[in-house]
Amino acid sequence: MPSSRKAARPTELSSFIVSVDSVIFAYMNQAVYIPLIMRAVEPFQDCWSLPGGPILEKETPESACLRKLEEDMGLKVEYLEQLYTFGAPDRDPRKRAFSISYFALIAESEEPLSWGQDSRTAQWFHIDQLPEVGWAFDHQQIVQMAIKRLRAKLSYEPVGLSLLAEEFSLSELKRIYDVILGTELDRRNFQKKLKSTGLLIPTRTVPSPRGKPSQLYRFDEARYQQLKEEGLSFGF
Amino acid sequence: MPSSRKAARPTELSSFIVSVDSVIFAYMNQAVYIPLIMRAVEPFQDCWSLPGGPILEKETPESACLRKLEEDMGLKVEYLEQLYTFGAPDRDPRKRAFSISYFALIAESEEPLSWGQDSRTAQWFHIDQLPEVGWAFDHQQIVQMAIKRLRAKLSYEPVGLSLLAEEFSLSELKRIYDVILGTELDRRNFQKKLKSTGLLIPTRTVPSPRGKPSQLYRFDEARYQQLKEEGLSFGF
Repeated sequence: MPSSRKAARPTELSSFIVSVDSVIFAYMNQAVYIPLIMRAVEPFQDCWSLPGGPILEKETPESACLRKLEEDMGLKVEYLEQLYTFGAPDRDPRKRAFSISYFALIAESEEPLSWGQDSRTAQWFHIDQLPEVGWAFDHQQIVQMAIKRLRAKLSYEPVGLSLLAEEFSLSELKRIYDVILGTELDRRNFQKKLKSTGLLIPTRTVPSPRGKPSQLYRFDEARYQQLKEEGLSFGF
Repeated sequence: MPSSRKAARPTELSSFIVSVDSVIFAYMNQAVYIPLIMRAVEPFQDCWSLPGGPILEKETPESACLRKLEEDMGLKVEYLEQLYTFGAPDRDPRKRAFSISYFALIAESEEPLSWGQDSRTAQWFHIDQLPEVGWAFDHQQIVQMAIKRLRAKLSYEPVGLSLLAEEFSLSELKRIYDVILGTELDRRNFQKKLKSTGLLIPTRTVPSPRGKPSQLYRFDEARYQQLKEEGLSFGF
């Protein structure tokens, strides 16, 4: 062991670029979208890449992530968690670079989301209609991992709620689950399970197009934190 | 956006040290242990640190991890997965350094594990009796996250099996769950659940100290991969 420790003196160490890249999920028009940016420069010019960029000297990976989302897309995220760090030696042809990737959710808003000032530069893609080719770096692999994580998380965390506005109906919530899982969950069973968690607080009823008023709910954050400590499963 | 992208030209980028650090779980003498190494040099001289070190120019993070475990401790791991990347700007007083941390399991072996040639340098700690002070860097935080992950994983992945030898009895398997969860699971219920997964293949019976022969099993890796695709839960 002493010899290997000596070999690791700071003066002999390689240093690398470390970036953040984010896969941002947004719920719009009854579907889930992620934004991709078309690169204007080499390498991978005109290829689709994730919003992100190098971490600055004094910032944490999380701050770098939030700064890039604000700078590049004017987005504020509701939920952010680390996904995975990608570090294959050949992932960037210029210099060895690591990407700490993030998984982000933004809440539905009454204002339409920015689709990029120049549609050639930034575009929101339906998660079932992502580009098949023309990706920069390993970003397609990052997106695939994020979608897998989103689907898995539905069963043990209320991630669907982070995609909705503060007040929502159970039909809207179920639609999010159906869209993400690519299936149609049983409505009665879904409502029963969600209600039994005690995480939904009824707020008010609103007129619905089909006549019967629709009950709105909000999410009980305090109870969720408590359940999370105890370990919870939605069982879907 | 164009201005922020211009600011990110490679020539102006900061570069950082990127290391790997591993939390290695081993099952020995009916308890779960992790190895820590006492640092011989500053910073954090004489403090406990995780096995690990800087990633070399041409290797992936996983290869760096396996190389360090082999070099430092002569260990071969059964299971390795990325845990989290730690990157607070002040985590290393010398230079900004990122740590890609890993979660590793090693299978029980008939040969005793190396406890380090010099007990002052490397030592295996019972996961319930870790040092309370005297840690290097943010390694205490990394270990805490790994233990939390190990406990959570028990409910949806057969991680307990990776800690055992190829052939094992259900009592040995249950002991691992009890030790990690710090509880005593119901024996009948545990055996019923495990058997119902179809993941255990009976191999042979061996004489047991209490007279009644003990049934040994091996793990059905092929069936596990299939269940994993479908999503499984052990329900503990």
